[in-house]
Amino acid sequence: MNAIDPNLQGSNDVIDMTHGGGGRAMADLIRDVFQRHFSNPHLARGNDGAVVELPPGRVVVSTDGHVISPLFFPGGDIGCLAVHGTVNDVAMMGARPLYLTVGVILEEGFARADLERIVKSMAEAARDAGVEIVTGDTKVVEQGKGDGIFITTTGVGVIPEGINVAGDQARPGHAIIVSGSIGDHGLAILSRRENLEFETEIRSDTAALNGLVGAMLAAVPGIKVLRDPTRGGLGATLNEIALQSKVGMMLDEQAIPIKRDVAAGCELLGLDPLYVANEGKLIAICEADAAERLLEVMRGHELARDAAIIGTVVEDRHAMVQMRTRLGGARVVDYLAGEQLPRIC
Amino acid sequence: MNAIDPNLQGSNDVIDMTHGGGGRAMADLIRDVFQRHFSNPHLARGNDGAVVELPPGRVVVSTDGHVISPLFFPGGDIGCLAVHGTVNDVAMMGARPLYLTVGVILEEGFARADLERIVKSMAEAARDAGVEIVTGDTKVVEQGKGDGIFITTTGVGVIPEGINVAGDQARPGHAIIVSGSIGDHGLAILSRRENLEFETEIRSDTAALNGLVGAMLAAVPGIKVLRDPTRGGLGATLNEIALQSKVGMMLDEQAIPIKRDVAAGCELLGLDPLYVANEGKLIAICEADAAERLLEVMRGHELARDAAIIGTVVEDRHAMVQMRTRLGGARVVDYLAGEQLPRIC
Repeated sequence: MNAIDPNLQGSNDVIDMTHGGGGRAMADLIRDVFQRHFSNPHLARGNDGAVVELPPGRVVVSTDGHVISPLFFPGGDIGCLAVHGTVNDVAMMGARPLYLTVGVILEEGFARADLERIVKSMAEAARDAGVEIVTGDTKVVEQGKGDGIFITTTGVGVIPEGINVAGDQARPGHAIIVSGSIGDHGLAILSRRENLEFETEIRSDTAALNGLVGAMLAAVPGIKVLRDPTRGGLGATLNEIALQSKVGMMLDEQAIPIKRDVAAGCELLGLDPLYVANEGKLIAICEADAAERLLEVMRGHELARDAAIIGTVVEDRHAMVQMRTRLGGARVVDYLAGEQLPRIC
Repeated sequence: MNAIDPNLQGSNDVIDMTHGGGGRAMADLIRDVFQRHFSNPHLARGNDGAVVELPPGRVVVSTDGHVISPLFFPGGDIGCLAVHGTVNDVAMMGARPLYLTVGVILEEGFARADLERIVKSMAEAARDAGVEIVTGDTKVVEQGKGDGIFITTTGVGVIPEGINVAGDQARPGHAIIVSGSIGDHGLAILSRRENLEFETEIRSDTAALNGLVGAMLAAVPGIKVLRDPTRGGLGATLNEIALQSKVGMMLDEQAIPIKRDVAAGCELLGLDPLYVANEGKLIAICEADAAERLLEVMRGHELARDAAIIGTVVEDRHAMVQMRTRLGGARVVDYLAGEQLPRIC
């Protein structure tokens, strides 16, 4: 993935074991790369952690490791993905994400230029999402004991008064909304891995959804469930919610937005787009009479122009997710048994 | 490190790629291993993050990745180490650690029994330290792209009213205290790697220091600096503090506690114990007239029986750390240039 030039070993152009050793090489790397791009007063103090200020409200924490391969892909890279992933997990709790911590595991021999590019991408993504990266940690493992870079981010946010979003609150009659086309991220990664060419380049949808969620909750504070369908895609995520809430779901295949190229790519690769990962989409479940209002607000936001009501929560003590197909039949959208796409996030 | 039996592939006894895929295998692993041992209502809810309750006070976050090799060592394992490391980083900010998040990166083929042992060790360490593991994430990478298991923990804590500890507050005249013998952790790891035998087994000192810190701050709320000398050891950590505070330090070699076997092992391996990692020790800096009182409280705690005043903060615009040697000479305790011990935490 990252070409390692043996001539660069020991130079300043690749990561070596000293960069994880707790001495001057590590201090220099932290100052020259991480602190430079993530610049803020928390990091500058150089303590073992950060003191953060939180507005009133319930505090949320969420964590996510990122091991995506390849590190750079159409539409993003592991850096912005690691920010978006955790910002979104915090936002899906109904919270406003405020702070991130970053734990980086580097493989010896990793190109410093790639690290810089990734750290810069993280810094930009954090700035765009309005969150601060307040503290971090760097470790280095020997060549062959890692894979370039792994990034674990943890987010801290606050749920405003009056908001109560959780996966166990779906009830029969509620509307199920998705914020846009499904499968873009997974297919972008896979087409890069397999060197597939499509009419137009398929790009990852990786994006921070906290702005969208803020607008949605301002319009409909009573949203019951928010969840981003990442690993396992829409299919696995809806099954999770169904299990948590002890309800069934009936989806309408025709209503589920999917790009033509993504659908074609999935067919070519033998993938069901329902299980392909997204990194900039969300599922919202709300009372039926709030659904049109919510949809309107979502469609007014650049990250949810193609939002659609895709189904209804139904009573079902087996917590099954079913779907009316385009051809008028019905199928079960099963909980994904194994894995479709390894290292998709 | 972890023997991989090809006959076990695809069985339930080793981790395979499906355990990171977002489907049923992953859900089962999370329920059967992580939720079972970390059991608490936060995890049981199954959301993307956790809502936590915080008492009044300034909120602290800290994060640390753990890539130690070997995973199991005399005195501990990567599991309890990952809990202690982050609990201690939060405590070193003067905060009471309350919650942890855990991000795990598993290598395909890792023995499930080893994972269970590690998760159990984390759960016990968290319970002993009085912190809750509230949310987590699991990823799996292909064989040869990781090294068994990497664990990134993030801690959240609260600084009680009236406490103000930070690395930039050392002033000339302040006393420098260490909580006990140095180098135990690093030498335990190294002797395991190198198969060295000593008269008595050298064990890692890995331990949660939040109880000790609580007792210290109750007795002397005015402690200026707390820091745990992990990677880079006492030498690198004191240099960090000197740089942050823009002061010098004068240490007394004779006063620095070190076990006979550890000293002998360091000599054998050509290591300077000043730079060998600790995982259950802390440095405290306080006003001179509070030092004896603080020392007394520390020595009353089981984790700091051998606490000692090891030196004094001095004026020095070059922020040098110096030491009076046993032989009556003086040496500079330089900021460690490279690395002594890779993957020590």
